[in-house]
Amino acid sequence: MTFDPATLRYNDQGLVPVIAQESSSGEVLMLAWMNAEAVARTLDSGRVTYWSRSRQAFWIKGETSGNVQELVEMRIDCDRDCLLAVVRQTGPACHTGARTCFFTEVRNGKEIAAPDPAVSSFGAAGGDA
Amino acid sequence: MTFDPATLRYNDQGLVPVIAQESSSGEVLMLAWMNAEAVARTLDSGRVTYWSRSRQAFWIKGETSGNVQELVEMRIDCDRDCLLAVVRQTGPACHTGARTCFFTEVRNGKEIAAPDPAVSSFGAAGGDA
Repeated sequence: MTFDPATLRYNDQGLVPVIAQESSSGEVLMLAWMNAEAVARTLDSGRVTYWSRSRQAFWIKGETSGNVQELVEMRIDCDRDCLLAVVRQTGPACHTGARTCFFTEVRNGKEIAAPDPAVSSFGAAGGDA
Repeated sequence: MTFDPATLRYNDQGLVPVIAQESSSGEVLMLAWMNAEAVARTLDSGRVTYWSRSRQAFWIKGETSGNVQELVEMRIDCDRDCLLAVVRQTGPACHTGARTCFFTEVRNGKEIAAPDPAVSSFGAAGGDA
């Protein structure tokens, strides 16, 4: 079946959440948003392109920082309202300079810095980040 | 720092998106939503508990199906508006019976069934799903 970005189920702002996952390690890097045009641009260009809610503009990940995301695989979830982008991340994914945006763990009721991947076994294959 | 669910940044419906990832394989299973009370219940009980937007009710994952998610680790993203729940999934995560909700791949402009994990190298550790 031909894929048409218009057939996804967007929220009332015309956006779907997109999970970015590093292909080499399995680490979940970030969650951001795409509108239909960003989905189309990502698939056409192979460069992951979000919609910035704060800037209300297309956001080619890494365009200014160089920390680009090359699309490896795009998946749609069962109810068509979320995407999984498997990517090759250059440099850190997070604007803080962290490898992933999910660097804070809740453990025993406290927030702690958690620099390691959430699932340590993922690291076996190494990483290109 | 003590973690207070009220300090997360919820959307205008009082919800944050939550990515569920299988701890044994790294596979991304699903995305669902929590309100502050669901976050607290999940951390207290160790059983992942979402807020069902369609039913407007708490949704203890697997309560009726038996396909529960045991919380292994909870992470917060850099801007505190998304959570990553690393889980041990019993049975399939998806209501369709699929292991993960992300079983459809977009490849060369077409939608195809993609039964394998999005990142094949994750499978090395096996899975308990």
